[in-house]
Amino acid sequence: MGLLAQAQESTVQSVTSPDGNLTLRFELGEGGAPRYSLQYKGKDVVKPSGMGFRLKDGTALVDYFRLVKASQSEKDETWKPVWGEENEIRDHHKELLVELEQTSSKRLMNIRFRVFDHALGFRYEFPQQRNLSYFVITDECTQFAMTGDHIAWWIPGDYDTQEYDYTRSRLSEIRGLMTGSITGNLSQTSFSPTGVQTALMLKSDDGLYINLHEAALVDYPCMHLDLDDKNFVFTSWLTPYPNGDKAYMQSACRTPWRTVIVSDDARDILASRVTLNLNEPCKLEDTSWIKPCKYMGVWWEMITGKSEWSYTYDAPNIHLGQTDYAKLKPHGRHGATTGNVKRYIDFASKHGFDALLVEGWNIGWEDWFGNAKDEVFDFVTPYPDFDLPGIRDYARQKGIKMIMHHETSSSIRNYERRMDEAYRFMKENGYDAVKSGYVGNIIPPGQNHYNQWHVNHYLYAVKKAAEYKIMVNAHEAVRPTGLCRTYPNLIGNESARGSEYQAFGGSKPGHTAILPFTRLIGGPMDYTPGLFENDIKKYNPNNSSWVNTTLCNQLSLYVSMSSPLQMAADLPETYERFMDAFQFIKDVEVDWDQSWYLEAEPMEYVTVARKAKGKDLWFVGGTNGEQPRISVINLNFLPAGKYVAIIYQDGKDAHYKENPQNYVISTKKVSPKTKLKIWTAAGGGYAISIRPQ
Amino acid sequence: MGLLAQAQESTVQSVTSPDGNLTLRFELGEGGAPRYSLQYKGKDVVKPSGMGFRLKDGTALVDYFRLVKASQSEKDETWKPVWGEENEIRDHHKELLVELEQTSSKRLMNIRFRVFDHALGFRYEFPQQRNLSYFVITDECTQFAMTGDHIAWWIPGDYDTQEYDYTRSRLSEIRGLMTGSITGNLSQTSFSPTGVQTALMLKSDDGLYINLHEAALVDYPCMHLDLDDKNFVFTSWLTPYPNGDKAYMQSACRTPWRTVIVSDDARDILASRVTLNLNEPCKLEDTSWIKPCKYMGVWWEMITGKSEWSYTYDAPNIHLGQTDYAKLKPHGRHGATTGNVKRYIDFASKHGFDALLVEGWNIGWEDWFGNAKDEVFDFVTPYPDFDLPGIRDYARQKGIKMIMHHETSSSIRNYERRMDEAYRFMKENGYDAVKSGYVGNIIPPGQNHYNQWHVNHYLYAVKKAAEYKIMVNAHEAVRPTGLCRTYPNLIGNESARGSEYQAFGGSKPGHTAILPFTRLIGGPMDYTPGLFENDIKKYNPNNSSWVNTTLCNQLSLYVSMSSPLQMAADLPETYERFMDAFQFIKDVEVDWDQSWYLEAEPMEYVTVARKAKGKDLWFVGGTNGEQPRISVINLNFLPAGKYVAIIYQDGKDAHYKENPQNYVISTKKVSPKTKLKIWTAAGGGYAISIRPQ
Repeated sequence: MGLLAQAQESTVQSVTSPDGNLTLRFELGEGGAPRYSLQYKGKDVVKPSGMGFRLKDGTALVDYFRLVKASQSEKDETWKPVWGEENEIRDHHKELLVELEQTSSKRLMNIRFRVFDHALGFRYEFPQQRNLSYFVITDECTQFAMTGDHIAWWIPGDYDTQEYDYTRSRLSEIRGLMTGSITGNLSQTSFSPTGVQTALMLKSDDGLYINLHEAALVDYPCMHLDLDDKNFVFTSWLTPYPNGDKAYMQSACRTPWRTVIVSDDARDILASRVTLNLNEPCKLEDTSWIKPCKYMGVWWEMITGKSEWSYTYDAPNIHLGQTDYAKLKPHGRHGATTGNVKRYIDFASKHGFDALLVEGWNIGWEDWFGNAKDEVFDFVTPYPDFDLPGIRDYARQKGIKMIMHHETSSSIRNYERRMDEAYRFMKENGYDAVKSGYVGNIIPPGQNHYNQWHVNHYLYAVKKAAEYKIMVNAHEAVRPTGLCRTYPNLIGNESARGSEYQAFGGSKPGHTAILPFTRLIGGPMDYTPGLFENDIKKYNPNNSSWVNTTLCNQLSLYVSMSSPLQMAADLPETYERFMDAFQFIKDVEVDWDQSWYLEAEPMEYVTVARKAKGKDLWFVGGTNGEQPRISVINLNFLPAGKYVAIIYQDGKDAHYKENPQNYVISTKKVSPKTKLKIWTAAGGGYAISIRPQ
Repeated sequence: MGLLAQAQESTVQSVTSPDGNLTLRFELGEGGAPRYSLQYKGKDVVKPSGMGFRLKDGTALVDYFRLVKASQSEKDETWKPVWGEENEIRDHHKELLVELEQTSSKRLMNIRFRVFDHALGFRYEFPQQRNLSYFVITDECTQFAMTGDHIAWWIPGDYDTQEYDYTRSRLSEIRGLMTGSITGNLSQTSFSPTGVQTALMLKSDDGLYINLHEAALVDYPCMHLDLDDKNFVFTSWLTPYPNGDKAYMQSACRTPWRTVIVSDDARDILASRVTLNLNEPCKLEDTSWIKPCKYMGVWWEMITGKSEWSYTYDAPNIHLGQTDYAKLKPHGRHGATTGNVKRYIDFASKHGFDALLVEGWNIGWEDWFGNAKDEVFDFVTPYPDFDLPGIRDYARQKGIKMIMHHETSSSIRNYERRMDEAYRFMKENGYDAVKSGYVGNIIPPGQNHYNQWHVNHYLYAVKKAAEYKIMVNAHEAVRPTGLCRTYPNLIGNESARGSEYQAFGGSKPGHTAILPFTRLIGGPMDYTPGLFENDIKKYNPNNSSWVNTTLCNQLSLYVSMSSPLQMAADLPETYERFMDAFQFIKDVEVDWDQSWYLEAEPMEYVTVARKAKGKDLWFVGGTNGEQPRISVINLNFLPAGKYVAIIYQDGKDAHYKENPQNYVISTKKVSPKTKLKIWTAAGGGYAISIRPQ
């Protein structure tokens, strides 16, 4: 034991962030067990926490390690994303690489830590070696030992969905609140009464904001966190295969990065670029075809139940390639008809949109869900009342790009088999972007959305799309972890409770004030804002859902929730009623030179200003949660000069329930010295567009 | 109950074969439960047996049925297979279609019976209907109630392999013999101590030969049979999904046919065409590119361990696309080297073969097995010492077609993703046929080879191959059920214990005298005969296996086990030592105008004569089992005329163990009146080629 003690002593390693505030400490604890801890400005963020793995062969990689080598390095470089919140991103970090050997087994495992000014990232790396060539991970033992009973903004851990409303509670309260937090979803598999998802947002009683997530999830299962609610220790909980195995590994290999973002200012969480910085540089040689865009959709009318994806009720079920739709009586409620689509094209074109998504254009929607149906869609056959060539030509003439829709119904083998043909068909018909969907249980049943097998699929689809120069906006896929840096044709993901839930019973008013701290840490979300009509009954008398925001809150989202793909989700006829407010959606940009995080508190408010990419245009979005408040911002992000600001703000009686469409639009001359005080309603917000005078 | 009783009475239906010998009887038994029974020449073959299904929703389709309609019809037509044992096949049967409604649920289920002279086929059909649109089968309840404790030639039921030696026993003895019959395999999952596979061969004490199998296995799990060994009743046992579900069904749909072949003459079992007749006609418009062929392979030297599939021992593992083989030291035991392949091409060309298979030509064999490795092969990258273009050109010049090898290691998603590229690569390089392999557990683990999901894959591969005009010879795929009629590019399957086991410890001497009654009922087998060297030690000092046949037994297989794809499996240098016997392999044809089954007894002997397709050449193969015997045959299958026969027979001291290479070749003038008596050794056999004088 003398030798071990000696080894231990030399194994304490630490590395501090460039600004000196964040310190990572690594050591081999008792029995050669790797441990890390994290301090911010002298305060504990993560107490000494366990690391390693349990393997299927009965062995573990959790102890009996000796330090072979520890090395430190520093990197400070700037790179240019294809699109995003900034036109340049600085990657400045210090790195500690710990090379370990398990003395009992002679197996090698390295841990690479990177410490940024407000964030830690670390991952496990397994060099190619005969003693650890192929191995099966049954548990990852990475822990995040919190210092106390923090406030958490959490959603239930789940192998199949992230589409939950957030709950704000103490860690100790999670267990009691879990059952009530697991609201219905078309596919869901929870696993623990204290299991929660990442990105997880936390706040300590001493004022630290802490965010736990992962970066670069490639060929590995999605990580959840299971809480020991006596000791406030989270442990990594990987999404399993049906047989319980978690990950099939082949050295050389590595895990995704585990990330901890921390600050005493909540705005730093939003400003952190750690998730992107921990991903690989862009692997696409030519990115000229990747174009951020603002779009509309023949979509909300189906979501609300005003119209339908399907074409007919006239057949018990559909056999692709056999069912003759021409012989079936249409039910008359089909949304994606040629006439209706052209009406959207006209509107989108008139108001300067780039693109139009159409769902329900292809055969198979009559029985697409819940039937474990293998060959559910073919992705190339339009309904008889959707004149694809006609629409294609009309859209081209009107300057509108069509966005394809590939709902897979989670029949993933069927999608992979037909993918080449589907992508070719898109390109032949001028579609450059696809919204893909993975609704419902994976087919065949027994699998889950977020395990290694399907994590692999989502990236496969993105990479194959890139071969065809197709942009992907994947819904119900695993939540993003910054892979859009490496594959910037991944222009969007859903992977959270999107706008659609406003037609499924509504979301909490603070929902969009927490998403930037959680879901958006991994990448942009196709949240589909722009809902101007709160009363869904007006679209569908059988749907009594209510959009729990003010109209100005909806406008704010185009800025506060950055995405290279932004929808105006509501119906043309609704926008016609509010053309003055709609002007903001017409004006707002979707790609940025720079962003400023002006105010932020999880689930309460987020205020962001952004400069349009390559243009002297600025936009501000102030998204408020459930409590009315006064937002106070300085416009000192503007360069010296004189500007005109158009301010879209909640009217004095505005309230997400009582008076959501109450808004005021004003024009004001502003300068970098201007300070604005803007009252925001419950569930409200504001939006500002600024241009040089 | 009065009404039910009344309904019952009218439900007894029966239909008799064209020759009047076989009678199928159907009735709705007590409680409206469908039952069938079968008689042959007045003897019971199948006693009244249950039918139907249990469904996942807790309901069943086993009783409460009423007869809606019963109708009979007769069909007598002749069709021409692309290849096979005959150039014309007669499909003469009487049909009974029973249309049932489950009175409790208003669900419709039809049962279609077809009675041929020596066979019954029946299947379940579900018309498209709202009350039974999508349903999940958890159990098929089809029974085969035997009349007594028959002799059975059986292999253990298994979800992953058919590669077992056959056991001959009474039904009542199966349970006691099961454990000993489950010999090791690289992937195996047995399920019941009385579970056996189809095609199952039986013989009753009153002299009836009975064969149970299925035809047209499409989009449904492979059926096994579970025996109630008190009552001698078999029940269908379907291969499940990992979650226990058996089949996902969507009406309109139907099950495969369940077949019972029966006769008092064992030769009728071999002559039956029921499996093909119950399959759909050919779906390929152009079949001109499908060509039976006789081939050699760079294969047996790897099977015996004389050489290896892999190239190097110099890396812990292989990463496709990353591992640089040029930097790895070759181990020098690689079989598929350019030089060695050219040597085989020379030999095959010199002796008139059509084609050459090469295994181990492509990268990835170093760690291909047992690692649950997703991206295990890419199917397009040759090893550095395999000059693919050079070999391609050399083979073309020598008139030899190259046969591609796609081992998948059961990483089926990887294969499907790469299939188009792999098939394109084949065609670009002049390969028109592929041997595919599914060795080892399905990746990811938890799935089985024979469930609905993978049954679907094997046919997907065949259909996609047809698009590329590629012939498929699939090993370790589900056993065939006559689908080669519909997709005649499926020119071969393994799906049983092939010749390779003669290098893995040996097979029973009677093995090839039972395969025609079992495995071959579903279609041709790539058995790979032609092993002239019995002592495997001569190839690999570490391999003490022995080929348990005489040399003449090997020759007989080219005729007794018909296949459009026949290999000469042994090494060129071995054939050089036996050029007189090798002459038969050079001469024998692989496609036929007509076949005559001269003698047959399961596992004891099979003697078949065949006329070459479009040529005045006849061949006879007499395959003997473990007991020496005298084969007595008439050559009255020959048309009037005078002929020369070359007879290859066991020498008088021949014995599969003691003196297997003892043979005698004689030439004899023969006519249709000639009667031959030929002694065959233990594990022996004979072969005859006949041409006009």
